Amino acid sequence: MELVEIAIEKLKSHGVTIENMGALVLESQIKYDPTLELEECINAVHSVLTKREVIHAVLTGMAIDEAVENNTFDPIISEIIQEDKPLYGLDEILALSIVNIYGSIALTNFGYLDKVKPGIIGEVDQLGKHSNNCTTFLDDIAGAIVAAAISRIAHK
Amino acid sequence: MELVEIAIEKLKSHGVTIENMGALVLESQIKYDPTLELEECINAVHSVLTKREVIHAVLTGMAIDEAVENNTFDPIISEIIQEDKPLYGLDEILALSIVNIYGSIALTNFGYLDKVKPGIIGEVDQLGKHSNNCTTFLDDIAGAIVAAAISRIAHK
Amino acid sequence: MELVEIAIEKLKSHGVTIENMGALVLESQIKYDPTLELEECINAVHSVLTKREVIHAVLTGMAIDEAVENNTFDPIISEIIQEDKPLYGLDEILALSIVNIYGSIALTNFGYLDKVKPGIIGEVDQLGKHSNNCTTFLDDIAGAIVAAAISRIAHK
Amino acid sequence: MELVEIAIEKLKSHGVTIENMGALVLESQIKYDPTLELEECINAVHSVLTKREVIHAVLTGMAIDEAVENNTFDPIISEIIQEDKPLYGLDEILALSIVNIYGSIALTNFGYLDKVKPGIIGEVDQLGKHSNNCTTFLDDIAGAIVAAAISRIAHK
Repeated sequence: MELVEIAIEKLKSHGVTIENMGALVLESQIKYDPTLELEECINAVHSVLTKREVIHAVLTGMAIDEAVENNTFDPIISEIIQEDKPLYGLDEILALSIVNIYGSIALTNFGYLDKVKPGIIGEVDQLGKHSNNCTTFLDDIAGAIVAAAISRIAHK
Repeated sequence: MELVEIAIEKLKSHGVTIENMGALVLESQIKYDPTLELEECINAVHSVLTKREVIHAVLTGMAIDEAVENNTFDPIISEIIQEDKPLYGLDEILALSIVNIYGSIALTNFGYLDKVKPGIIGEVDQLGKHSNNCTTFLDDIAGAIVAAAISRIAHK
Repeated sequence: MELVEIAIEKLKSHGVTIENMGALVLESQIKYDPTLELEECINAVHSVLTKREVIHAVLTGMAIDEAVENNTFDPIISEIIQEDKPLYGLDEILALSIVNIYGSIALTNFGYLDKVKPGIIGEVDQLGKHSNNCTTFLDDIAGAIVAAAISRIAHK
Repeated sequence: MELVEIAIEKLKSHGVTIENMGALVLESQIKYDPTLELEECINAVHSVLTKREVIHAVLTGMAIDEAVENNTFDPIISEIIQEDKPLYGLDEILALSIVNIYGSIALTNFGYLDKVKPGIIGEVDQLGKHSNNCTTFLDDIAGAIVAAAISRIAHK
């Protein structure tokens, strides 16, 4: 299986799919282009996920979340990550490695999505807060992928 | 007059004051700390404005807006800047020089403010769109200062 | 004339060509791939220059340099820019808008080139220091384009 | 023990001390200020290490290195991290969370140090390549702390 497929499967196993990320892209951009269709948004998400930097960020961020969940990560930083302290900040930094390569539209949309947490982004965030799952990195990764796909659509 | 005073006066001459930026900081943070007062927010804005990087960004961005307005800037890029094409993007990049030094909370708040454009940020943005004023850089600078001050408050 | 052609001509009029930037790419990467040829490096530089974000950064940075040179830019910030004070910093920030979209290899190479200033980058820098020309933004722009092209080559 | 002490001890256990990082700061800045002393450079490094963002980056990066070393991290991304593929890139991104808050001087110095790898930075990098230790994140973290301290010195 190729790395891109592994990344997509991993996201899917936590409820984050190219379809529900695509839906957030559509929701964001339909007001600028009423003819925009879901399929094009899903294609944009998929295209973002084929980039090497994006795959590395997805696999690294999700690996940290898992290691924290399994108690195999350094306990001091795990506690900080698990509580998703608003002051932690490295989850957003890791997401920047995705957002940066899509320019300033991706950057501002990421900031917006990270505050508003619509759709699957909010669901993932809540899951981490009300269960033993650690999703500290996952919600930012999902937000960054959506923001990057929004930028792709906007640049067309 | 010191550089910081010059920057504050310049912003004020376009309607952007430490008071109306402070009001946006309060609006954003009152839900996390109901005892937060406007004065503390205004002080945070002022503290942000004393940083060398911030002063340089304020003076450079406003100088570009002015040069475009006065037709003394390169005509090709002026046209792109004047129309504030969503794809221009360097206004957000310049604002990053302010936001970056205040960490990831500043970054995500900047993205949010840049999309929602509350208060003075939106007023400045609209002024640029419905007059001969060029405010392409100014609204992002104001948003970045507010986001930086929000981060200062949140870190306390 | 298309924007990309205008940007290339502007750079050329200040001695910065796709050929001498390509030579710096080759110099940097020949140790990793001894079969690399100048033509491929020049093509990578050209490809970087076709990106919208890059064109905007080139035209904006060179327009600031020119406005400073022509005394049509705000005098207070012009003095800071003209002296290219090491603490100014917005020239590097503007260059980041080019570097960011090419990932972390571009970022570290930009930092290196900005310190070492080889070839045309150093020539442009010196020109600004020993003449009435203002090249504060130009040397960083050239460095960023070279760094971006290095990243393109490295990713193949 | 406070978080800052934990971070300093962790770095020290891998041979990275505030003294050998301070020596790199001195080496870099002595040409600009011949009166600069090692003690001031060490103090600058220590000051950098007291920042929350820096502590989080140190603890997170070193925790990833350790988890990879102990085979408790996701095997697919571990293989990519272990080999420190030049195309991995997230080690530099994590380091950015340190560098960004110290402005553009820190950024360009980080890029330079990451290419040249002087002193302890190079030693850590080589250790990772010629042993079972994983130091993929550690050398970038050390470089970022040195670059941040250089910026502190330069701004005085």
